[in-house]
Amino acid sequence: MVKNILGKNDYIEFLRGKKATFMLALSNTQTANIKDITQAGIPGKIYLTPTLDSEFVCTGEVRSLEDIAQTPKGVPTPALITRAVHLLNPFSNIELLNLGLELKPNIDYFKIHDFGIKPSKSIATNANIDSQFVFQAAVEFGQNYTTNDEYIILGESVPSGTTTALATALALGYDAQDKFSSSFKNNPKDIKQQTVNQALANIKDDDDIFEILSKVSDNMLIFTAGFILGLNNSKKLILAGGTQMACALLVVNSILKTMGGEIETSNLSLITTKWVYEDKNSDIKALLEMLDFNINAYYSDFDFTTTYHPALKLYDEGEAKEGVGAGGCLAYAIINGIKKEAIVNKIESFLI
Amino acid sequence: MVKNILGKNDYIEFLRGKKATFMLALSNTQTANIKDITQAGIPGKIYLTPTLDSEFVCTGEVRSLEDIAQTPKGVPTPALITRAVHLLNPFSNIELLNLGLELKPNIDYFKIHDFGIKPSKSIATNANIDSQFVFQAAVEFGQNYTTNDEYIILGESVPSGTTTALATALALGYDAQDKFSSSFKNNPKDIKQQTVNQALANIKDDDDIFEILSKVSDNMLIFTAGFILGLNNSKKLILAGGTQMACALLVVNSILKTMGGEIETSNLSLITTKWVYEDKNSDIKALLEMLDFNINAYYSDFDFTTTYHPALKLYDEGEAKEGVGAGGCLAYAIINGIKKEAIVNKIESFLI
Repeated sequence: MVKNILGKNDYIEFLRGKKATFMLALSNTQTANIKDITQAGIPGKIYLTPTLDSEFVCTGEVRSLEDIAQTPKGVPTPALITRAVHLLNPFSNIELLNLGLELKPNIDYFKIHDFGIKPSKSIATNANIDSQFVFQAAVEFGQNYTTNDEYIILGESVPSGTTTALATALALGYDAQDKFSSSFKNNPKDIKQQTVNQALANIKDDDDIFEILSKVSDNMLIFTAGFILGLNNSKKLILAGGTQMACALLVVNSILKTMGGEIETSNLSLITTKWVYEDKNSDIKALLEMLDFNINAYYSDFDFTTTYHPALKLYDEGEAKEGVGAGGCLAYAIINGIKKEAIVNKIESFLI
Repeated sequence: MVKNILGKNDYIEFLRGKKATFMLALSNTQTANIKDITQAGIPGKIYLTPTLDSEFVCTGEVRSLEDIAQTPKGVPTPALITRAVHLLNPFSNIELLNLGLELKPNIDYFKIHDFGIKPSKSIATNANIDSQFVFQAAVEFGQNYTTNDEYIILGESVPSGTTTALATALALGYDAQDKFSSSFKNNPKDIKQQTVNQALANIKDDDDIFEILSKVSDNMLIFTAGFILGLNNSKKLILAGGTQMACALLVVNSILKTMGGEIETSNLSLITTKWVYEDKNSDIKALLEMLDFNINAYYSDFDFTTTYHPALKLYDEGEAKEGVGAGGCLAYAIINGIKKEAIVNKIESFLI
């Protein structure tokens, strides 16, 4: 079942039975190199996670390393969930957004959109993003994007993305402290908070919104905001993610405030996992309620209670939680009649 | 299994594995307000049945009343069957046809086609339908309708629709007495027949076909006939219903006779439930054999023998029988590999 966080169920019910394009936003920020700030990948090779995730979702193989990305505790990437959904109820199309990757995925045929965006630096010093350029590229991409599918599911893979998202939301003036999720069960608040504090210390009183984003944000957040504004409600778009996607919406909200603009959002939604929705260390609903526009928001009622696999059970204990569009992809499976058991079995089959 | 009533099984076999649009024709006739004439809904609120049925099929919720429509004996609406099928093997699209509703369904996103058609009056006095207008709107709708789906399944929700159908068939000169079904196990023949007799008494010898339809028919019958003629075999259409849909075909037949026209019907079919097919108080096969054109007709071999739920068992005893496209929707599930047990379980889950 897909359950409501905000809004009615009509949006998701309308999409029942319909096919989607899956779009995966991939980005590296050197923030992820700060020791112990994220567990979204292999220590020392965290930067490979988006590359490996996209390879696995598209081809079922990891090519730029021997194995799938997993945490030091052995929690496998949510890309497994996305891939399982794609096998059971295929997306009609997968497109990758290269929003500044250290290493491009080793994949043929699949469309990889390149925008000339570079990996960003650490927000602890200054992310040094050409935010106007990234934003403008995204707006144009949204304006020109066409697909025959009824809707787009947009996921992301950005290691340390919750840290950059928290910094971004705070820098934009939102009461976001303690509302952001983490790939850890026990959110490493000291390192994370220290990094965010360092980031915020770089903001000057007269920085405009794009200067703020340049310093403390990441490419995915800025691009997603621009993409939403570029699409301008012309197409149904599911932001498949947790608090990072909520932050992209906060960025949209701030840009609209700054520019005095408005946006129609009837075709926009956010769908996350049950692990994010029920997370006691974050509050996605509160983040979404800070928006000045309405947003349909849902979570997929899926968990690993029935699995035999200890690595997957860790999800239910609060590790990993979301990423690579897992929550939105689970919804895609559910509204196309795929049973929970079939999804669990398929994911398990990757780990044998 | 989907079993033959008339014709070969090639038509339904060709559709195996293909996706359909579900279209639901919704209409009110004040005939339904005659005491005890129908049990398709809540006494005093029978007029809400099509509204509630469409809300439940689309969203899983009834919004214009506290509960789903059910008969005074507690037989739940066949909308449960349609919704269960949609959850297990989603239609790629659901579209509603507002053919004169007292209350519009409270649903966002889903396409509700409005034609400016008003609820019709009671046939006991004069239904007073602008039949040429309804017919013409339907022909144009059929001529202009486009979909990427391989076929359309057209269901209906029209309380007291079997009474108006019987009156229509008789008024058009068909030997239809005792061949029409009912939502009752024990067809309330006295009230029903009395109403039909009153309706027929209003027909004058020199009434043309549209004058006859204006007086004794309902909007769904006239619209469906026009839609079939407008589509003109350009698209596969399943009439998902019982004797009411058979009557719509009789209307097509009479219009063609009157106008001296012909129609190719290779893409047209009717699919109903086992409950209608096996009903001893009606004879859908005989009605279809009165047509001057060939028609593929089937029924879905589905019943509630395995359910534990007493309210559902009443279907097997002859209550309710058909509606909201139940028979055609069951066929849609069956030809897409959905098991009977899964359908029964899903329907039961709504009643817990």
